[in-house]
Amino acid sequence: MEKLKEYVSVKDEDHFYHQGAVELLIFNFLLILTILTIWLFKNHRFRFLHETGGAMLYGLVMGLIIRYVTKSPDVESGTVYECEKLKSGPSTLLINITNQVYEYQYKREISHHNVNGHQGNAMLQKMTFDPSIFFNILLPPIIFHAGYSLKKRHFFRNLGSILTYAFLGTAISCIVIGLIMYGFVKAMVHIGQLKEWEFHFTDCLFFGSLMSATDPVTVLAIFHELNVDTDLYTLLFGESVLNDAVAIVLTHSISIYSPKENPNAFDAAAFFQSVGNFLGIFAGSFAMGSSYAVVTALISFHLTKFTKLCEFPMLETGLFFLLSWSAFLSAEAAGLTGIVAVLFCGVTQAHYTYNNLSPDSKMRTKQLFEFMNFLAENVIFCYMGLALFTFQNHIFNPLFIFGALVAVFVARASNIYPLSFLLNLGRKQKIPRNFQHMMMFSGLRGAIAFALAIRDTASQPKQMMFSTALLMVFFTVWVFGGGTTPMLTWLQIRVGIDPDEDLNVKAASQSASNLDKNTTKAESAWLFRIWYGFDHKYLKPLLTHTGPPLTSTLPEWCNPVARLLTSPSAYGDQLKDSDTVYIINNDELTENYESSAHVPVPAQDSTGSIQATGKEDIQEGDIGLGRYKLQLQQTAGQPQKNSLA
Amino acid sequence: MEKLKEYVSVKDEDHFYHQGAVELLIFNFLLILTILTIWLFKNHRFRFLHETGGAMLYGLVMGLIIRYVTKSPDVESGTVYECEKLKSGPSTLLINITNQVYEYQYKREISHHNVNGHQGNAMLQKMTFDPSIFFNILLPPIIFHAGYSLKKRHFFRNLGSILTYAFLGTAISCIVIGLIMYGFVKAMVHIGQLKEWEFHFTDCLFFGSLMSATDPVTVLAIFHELNVDTDLYTLLFGESVLNDAVAIVLTHSISIYSPKENPNAFDAAAFFQSVGNFLGIFAGSFAMGSSYAVVTALISFHLTKFTKLCEFPMLETGLFFLLSWSAFLSAEAAGLTGIVAVLFCGVTQAHYTYNNLSPDSKMRTKQLFEFMNFLAENVIFCYMGLALFTFQNHIFNPLFIFGALVAVFVARASNIYPLSFLLNLGRKQKIPRNFQHMMMFSGLRGAIAFALAIRDTASQPKQMMFSTALLMVFFTVWVFGGGTTPMLTWLQIRVGIDPDEDLNVKAASQSASNLDKNTTKAESAWLFRIWYGFDHKYLKPLLTHTGPPLTSTLPEWCNPVARLLTSPSAYGDQLKDSDTVYIINNDELTENYESSAHVPVPAQDSTGSIQATGKEDIQEGDIGLGRYKLQLQQTAGQPQKNSLA
Repeated sequence: MEKLKEYVSVKDEDHFYHQGAVELLIFNFLLILTILTIWLFKNHRFRFLHETGGAMLYGLVMGLIIRYVTKSPDVESGTVYECEKLKSGPSTLLINITNQVYEYQYKREISHHNVNGHQGNAMLQKMTFDPSIFFNILLPPIIFHAGYSLKKRHFFRNLGSILTYAFLGTAISCIVIGLIMYGFVKAMVHIGQLKEWEFHFTDCLFFGSLMSATDPVTVLAIFHELNVDTDLYTLLFGESVLNDAVAIVLTHSISIYSPKENPNAFDAAAFFQSVGNFLGIFAGSFAMGSSYAVVTALISFHLTKFTKLCEFPMLETGLFFLLSWSAFLSAEAAGLTGIVAVLFCGVTQAHYTYNNLSPDSKMRTKQLFEFMNFLAENVIFCYMGLALFTFQNHIFNPLFIFGALVAVFVARASNIYPLSFLLNLGRKQKIPRNFQHMMMFSGLRGAIAFALAIRDTASQPKQMMFSTALLMVFFTVWVFGGGTTPMLTWLQIRVGIDPDEDLNVKAASQSASNLDKNTTKAESAWLFRIWYGFDHKYLKPLLTHTGPPLTSTLPEWCNPVARLLTSPSAYGDQLKDSDTVYIINNDELTENYESSAHVPVPAQDSTGSIQATGKEDIQEGDIGLGRYKLQLQQTAGQPQKNSLA
Repeated sequence: MEKLKEYVSVKDEDHFYHQGAVELLIFNFLLILTILTIWLFKNHRFRFLHETGGAMLYGLVMGLIIRYVTKSPDVESGTVYECEKLKSGPSTLLINITNQVYEYQYKREISHHNVNGHQGNAMLQKMTFDPSIFFNILLPPIIFHAGYSLKKRHFFRNLGSILTYAFLGTAISCIVIGLIMYGFVKAMVHIGQLKEWEFHFTDCLFFGSLMSATDPVTVLAIFHELNVDTDLYTLLFGESVLNDAVAIVLTHSISIYSPKENPNAFDAAAFFQSVGNFLGIFAGSFAMGSSYAVVTALISFHLTKFTKLCEFPMLETGLFFLLSWSAFLSAEAAGLTGIVAVLFCGVTQAHYTYNNLSPDSKMRTKQLFEFMNFLAENVIFCYMGLALFTFQNHIFNPLFIFGALVAVFVARASNIYPLSFLLNLGRKQKIPRNFQHMMMFSGLRGAIAFALAIRDTASQPKQMMFSTALLMVFFTVWVFGGGTTPMLTWLQIRVGIDPDEDLNVKAASQSASNLDKNTTKAESAWLFRIWYGFDHKYLKPLLTHTGPPLTSTLPEWCNPVARLLTSPSAYGDQLKDSDTVYIINNDELTENYESSAHVPVPAQDSTGSIQATGKEDIQEGDIGLGRYKLQLQQTAGQPQKNSLA
C-alpha cells in the first residue's frame, strides 16, 4: 500500500516533468514554424502578413487545439473548498490531508463566473506562464536591443519631436482613452453589466496608460525592408521606444495613485504625488540604467587597461550581458522601472562600453543581443496568440471592447494630429500630411501593452482589461500591420531611399536657406553642445580608449589621479592632442556639426536586411555627431582612433 | 474599504514582482562575481580553487546571508490548516476565503519535523526554483555543447575503453553504492533512526545510480589549461559524458522498477523489464537525438540548396538552436531521456549540419552554445551553493552521509581499477597505473547528480538523498577539484603536451611493431569502416555539401531521386569523383587510415584557452578519420572540398 502510493507519486512526478517539456516543445515548435514562415516570406517578398502576425496566428491555432483537443485529466479541480479558519489568502498554504502536510502556493483570484469553466485542464494552466517571466526575461532583451541599436544620428536630429510625441503624446493618449472608457463604464453600470464600485476612474486611466504603449515592431520591420523615408522611420522608432518607457512608468504611477477618500473624486495631493512619482521613477530609472552602463564601461576599460580581459571574449561578453540585465533587475528591485533603465543602459553601453570591447566581443555581443531580441519577440507574439484560448480567466465584454476600439483611435488621432501641428510651427523640416496619416496608422499595440495587462489579472476589472487589450493587439497587428504596405502606396510615401543619400538631398535643398538654419540649429543645440564637450573631455577619456587623455583636460592639480585613470593608448596621443582645445569654441563646433551634415557619407546604411540594423549604427559610435569626430581626427591626424570608434 | 483592499492587493503584486527581480538579481550578482573571479584566477594562474568551486562558494555565502539576515515577512505561514473534505493533494486547489475564490498550486510534501522550521520566509521559497528548470533549460546547453565539441579523433581512438567505463563502470558503481547504502540503512533501522518501510533496496539503488554520474567539469578545465596527456583527457571526458547519460537512464529505469509483491525481494520479471527499459530508453533517445540532427541537416541543406536561408544567418542560427533543443524536449515528452538525445544530437549536428551552415552561422552557433554552456554551468554551481541554506526541507543524517562517502569511494575504486585491468589485457597502449589513480581521483560529483537528486524531493527518503548528494558535491568539488594540480604533480603525469605531437610520438614508438598493430587496428575497425563507407557514400551527400554526388553512389534506377537530392555543387565534381570507388577497397582504406596517423598534423589543437575547444574539433568535420579525407582529396584533386570541410 505504502509502496503503491510512492509508485503513484513517482508516476505523477514523471508526468509533471514531461509536462514542462511539452509546454516548451510547443513553443519551440511554434518558433520553428515562424522561422520557416519568415524565411518563406523573405523569399517571396510577401508583405500582407508580417512574421509577428504569423507568429500570433500560429499561436492562436495552437491555443485552439490545446483548448479543445486535449482532455482534462484532473477530475478533482473545479471543486471549491471552504476553509473557515483562513481570513485572507496567504502566499503559501500548508494543508494537512490524511496526516500528510502539503505545501500550496498562491496563484490568483478567480471570478465566480469563471469557477465552473475552470475545468482544471493542467495543460492550459501550464501554458499560461508567470507574467513575471515577461517582465524579467523576455522584455529586457527587446528593449535593450532597441537602445543598443538606436540610430543616434537620425534620432538626435529629431529629438525634440520625438520627446514631444513620447511624453506629451502618451499623456494625451492616456487621458483620452481614460475619459472615453469612463463614459463606456458609466453606460455599462447603467445597463447593469457592471457594479459601480468595481470600476473607478483610476482604473480607466490605468487602462488608458497601458493601451498607450505602441509597439510598431511590425511596421518598422516593413519600413526597414522597404527603405522608407528615414525621417518617418526615426520619428516612429524614437516615439515607440520612449513611449513604451513613458507608458510603463505612467501605468505604475497610476496604479499607486490612491486618493484618501472617494476614489472617483479628484484629489489634488494624490495627483501631484503621482506626478512626482512619475518624474522620480523616470529619472531614477534613467540614472540606474546609465550608471550600470558606466560601471560596465569602467570595468571593461580599467580591467583591460592593466590586464587582459579581452583575451577571454567569453568573460567579457558574459560581464556585459549580466551587467546590462542587472540594470533592469536592480531598477525593478528598487521599485523603479526596469524597462526605462535597460533602455538607457543600452544607449549608454553603445556609446561607451562598445568602444572598449575587443573586436571579437563586439561581434559576439551584437549577435547575442540580436538573437535574444529575435527569439524574445517571437516568443511573445506566439504567446499572445496562445493566450486567447489558453488563459482561463478571460472576461469579454462587447461594450467594453467596442469602447476600447473607439478610444484607441480617438486617442491616437488626438495625439498625432495636434502635436504634429504644434511641432510643424517650430520645425524647419515640416512633418508632411501623409507622414502624419502614416503615424496615425502605425499605432499598433503589442508586447508592452500585453505585458502590462497580464501583469495583474488578479481582480475582475483587470481580467476584463487584459482580455480587451489582447483583442486590441490582435486587431491592430493583423489589420494595421497587414495594411502597412498598401497604406504606404496609397499615401504616396517614398520607398527605396538610401538613408544617407536622403540626408544629403535634404541638406542640399536647404543649403539655400543655410544662414537662418545655422542660427536655429545653434539655438536648439546649446544644451547638446555643453554635453558634447563634457562627454568628449571627461567621460570618453575616463570610460573608453578614445578621446584626449585626462591629464590634458583636467586641471593641473588633478594630474596624479588623471594619470592613473587614463588609458596608456591615450598617452601616446598626448602631444598631438593639443588641438582639442578648440572644442570649447562653440562656433567652431557648430560649424563642424553643420558642415558634417553636408559631407557625403559612405553608403553603409543601405543594407536591406533587418539583421544589419544593429551593426551599422553602432559603428558610428558617437552621439549624433558621428561625422564631426571623423573630421577632428582628420585635422589632428590620428588614424588609429578611427579604427577604434 | 473595498478600495483599501484593492490598494493592498496592488501593493502585494508590486512586492511579488520585485521579488522575482531580486532573485534573478542575486543570481546575476553571483555570476558577475564568478566571472570577475575567473578573470582574476586566469591572470594569476591560481589553481587550488577552480571557478566552479568559486561559484559554489559564493552561492554558499549568499545562501547563508539570505537564510539568516532576511526577515520572515509572512506571519501567516507555518500554520497548518485542516481540510477534511480533501482526500489527496490535487495539483490545483480552489479555496473560498471570505467569499472570494483563490487558486493555489501544489508544490510539495513537507516532512512533519520540517513544518516548524518552515517559517515561510518568502525569499527562501523564491530562491529554490522549480527543478524542471534544471532539466529543461540549464542542462541541455551543457550536454549539447559537450557533444558538439567532442574531440572525435581522440574519442574514437579510445572508444572501446570509454564505452566500458561508461556502461559497465556506471553499472558497477550503481550496484556497489546501492549495496553499501543498504547496509547503512539496515544499521539505521536497527538503531531506530529510520523506519523499515521508508527505505527499500530499490531506493538505495536509486541513490546509487544518481551518485554514479560523475561530472569532471573542474578537472577537465584544469587538464585543458595544463595540456595534460591527451589519452587521459579523452578517457575522462568520454567517460564522464557517456556516464551522465547512462546514470540518468539508469535512475529513470530504477525509479520505474516496481516488483509486484515484496519491494525488498528480487523480482526477476521486474528486473528484466527494467533492463529492457534501460536499453529501450537509451536506444530511443539516441534515435530521437540523431533524427533531429538529421532533420536539421536536411532543412539547412535542402533549403539552402534551392534558396538562400544562409543569407539570413539569424534564421539559420535560430533554427539550429530550436531544433537541437526540441530534440531534448521531444525525448522528454516521449518519456525518453532528453540528455542522451541532446548529446547525440550535438555529435550528429557537428558531423553533418555544421558543414551546411554559412561561415557566419558556423561562428554564431559555436559562440552561442559556448556562451550558454558557460552561463548554465555557473548558474548551476552557484545554485548548488545557495541550495545548502535556502532549500527548506533538508534532512541531514550523519550516518547516511558517512555511508554515502564510503560508498562513493569504494564504488569508484571498484569501477576504475578492475576495468582498467581488464582493458589493459586488450589494449595495445596500456592505461598506466598513475592514469588509473588520476581517474579514481577525478570522480567528482556535480550538476547531473544534483539535478537527479533535486528532481524528486517530495518524500522524506528523497529529501535525505538530496541533502546527502549536495554534501557529496561540495566535498568532491572542493577537495578533489582543488587537489587536481597537486595530484598531477604527485602522480608524475606529464603536462604541457601538444596533443598532436603526442599522437606522433606515440605513433613513432609503435612503428617498430607496426605489422601486428595493423592487424589489430583492422580487426577493431571493421564495424567502423562499414559505417564510414555508408556515411561517405550516402549520408554525407544526402545531408551536406561534401562527398560524391548521390547519382554516382546510388544504383542506376535511383537516378531521378538521386538527382533531386544532390547538391548542385556536387554535380561539378561528378566527373572527377570516379575514383571514389576505391573506398570500398578495405585494405586501401585501412592503409590510408594507418598512414594518416603518422602524418604530422598541423598544430591547430594546441591552443591553450578553453574557448578554443569547440572550434578546433569541429574543423575536423569528420568521424575519426579526419586526415583520411584530406588525403583522398589530395589524390582526387578537389581542393574546393577541403575548404568546405
